[in-house]
Amino acid sequence: MSAAPPREEFMREAIRLAQEGMRRNAGGPFGAVIVRDGQIVGRGWNRVTSTNDPTAHAEMVAIRDACQRLGSFQLTGCEIFTSCEPCPMCLAAIGWARLDRVTHAATRGDAAAAGFDDDYLYTQMALSPGERDRPTEILLRQSGQALFREWLLKEDRTPY
Amino acid sequence: MSAAPPREEFMREAIRLAQEGMRRNAGGPFGAVIVRDGQIVGRGWNRVTSTNDPTAHAEMVAIRDACQRLGSFQLTGCEIFTSCEPCPMCLAAIGWARLDRVTHAATRGDAAAAGFDDDYLYTQMALSPGERDRPTEILLRQSGQALFREWLLKEDRTPY
Repeated sequence: MSAAPPREEFMREAIRLAQEGMRRNAGGPFGAVIVRDGQIVGRGWNRVTSTNDPTAHAEMVAIRDACQRLGSFQLTGCEIFTSCEPCPMCLAAIGWARLDRVTHAATRGDAAAAGFDDDYLYTQMALSPGERDRPTEILLRQSGQALFREWLLKEDRTPY
Repeated sequence: MSAAPPREEFMREAIRLAQEGMRRNAGGPFGAVIVRDGQIVGRGWNRVTSTNDPTAHAEMVAIRDACQRLGSFQLTGCEIFTSCEPCPMCLAAIGWARLDRVTHAATRGDAAAAGFDDDYLYTQMALSPGERDRPTEILLRQSGQALFREWLLKEDRTPY
């Protein structure tokens, strides 16, 4: 049995994906890999501008890739290596995916200095809805609550 | 020229998508529509468990749908109606997509009472990385920063 590659190798692969994607004009300079038991099980690089998909951040693509490969909607026992600190979208996706651990190279401050909104989004996120720049309104709340009542009574539901 | 439908109609459509998706076992009880100039330009419902995709929340699916239809990675001039307050992943995606406005029915508290992690994720998000439940580590930061230097020098980059 060979030893697992050092952790730096996984980060170098994430950075290589970032660089390759940027040079091919796939999107911004971001790459990520998902690792389980010392093996890469998912890869992603930013494809926002080339695929018209604002959700196609490197981490999101890597999570979706690993989930397809492993046939699961949760990645317990896996970790993510990403070339930059995850934005709030990706950090919450990491939470939903139940990844064990996050390792990143650059920080949200480094991303902000390069013109990306990560730090702004973290700041907005921490505010109550009424204090945010983007208006938020509640409408038909009771109808929304009724959905959850039906969900909880549904015998064949799959929780996640 | 006919008048735009009342805003309640858009929310009813989001709730109908949520209910239909839940009943077909696509995923959790969540639906969303994207509206521009009084017309629905994107639809989504939760598909997490049926497609093994932890990122396939209703809002994410609706944003991706609208972006494909409109051929753009930004949705300025559009708004979203969603059956439940967006989780941090979806709220940040709404930010990246540059949606003008958010209208939701149920709240994150209603979602938490039905067993969903939204409220927990908001709480984790507001902590500094070292205080969160999930371990976070920085590795090869300088190599990550070098990606941003290359990005800023790249003459044909598409910012987003």
